[in-house]
Amino acid sequence: MGKEMRKNDRSMNEADIVELLRMTEYGVLSMAGLDSYAYGVPLSYVFLNGALYFHSALEGYKWDCIQENNQVSFCVVGETEILPSKFSTKYQSVIVFGQITVIEGAEKREALIGFLKKYSSEFMEKGLKYLESDEHITRVLKLTIEDMLGKARR
Amino acid sequence: MGKEMRKNDRSMNEADIVELLRMTEYGVLSMAGLDSYAYGVPLSYVFLNGALYFHSALEGYKWDCIQENNQVSFCVVGETEILPSKFSTKYQSVIVFGQITVIEGAEKREALIGFLKKYSSEFMEKGLKYLESDEHITRVLKLTIEDMLGKARR
Repeated sequence: MGKEMRKNDRSMNEADIVELLRMTEYGVLSMAGLDSYAYGVPLSYVFLNGALYFHSALEGYKWDCIQENNQVSFCVVGETEILPSKFSTKYQSVIVFGQITVIEGAEKREALIGFLKKYSSEFMEKGLKYLESDEHITRVLKLTIEDMLGKARR
Repeated sequence: MGKEMRKNDRSMNEADIVELLRMTEYGVLSMAGLDSYAYGVPLSYVFLNGALYFHSALEGYKWDCIQENNQVSFCVVGETEILPSKFSTKYQSVIVFGQITVIEGAEKREALIGFLKKYSSEFMEKGLKYLESDEHITRVLKLTIEDMLGKARR
């Protein structure tokens, strides 16, 4: 997609990219927006079977944006450390590009259980009950990954 | 711009928004992108005189995107805390909408000094020399703020 990195010494290998996607708590989903202003919003996510999953309320600006244009990117940033004497920052970041679709059925359930495992593993039993009652008012979005860029300043 | 928040009990007041913009280390700049995929990239920034400033190399995909469409948003996230038993996360986030312009001269210099003060205040003298040598190969971008949304889950 032509998004070459300017400094190739800073590119991350695929294992490091996958590790960062697995370990990071949240990312920012960037969408084209409805009024020509791009829109980026922080979201919890699960990285599962090579795809990213989000959940969403049934209505809202994010959902409106995705319906208009499902071609998005998702940016995840690992631990950062300011390097004052170098006028720089140590960081790792990954940008994932792809298209969003709504999922249902078994895959939806698997993704929601993935959220419980990632964020609430001590409360699985309570979580499964919560899921039972709220699954029908939650939309689960899948970002099918088409391209990934990883960049690190070590 | 029609980006109403769904849960108004979670909106932040202006003082809290400004505080978060002042204190946070980096944010994600969302742009429309050149190939219909939205593009979001993490950036250091300075909040100065009511505007946001970034720096950028003279060439690169970010700069290409901005030239094509300067209507962007910038998302900043404060400290987060997963609340496992509530199936939720405590956070504060601000999304700023506006247009990007390139600045030069005194305002450019003031912004670059703002970066030194924010990230490298212990190294001002060295920083001013560094700035002297690198100012001409650095582009400074200004995001003039048109709208801000702040959202907090306490």
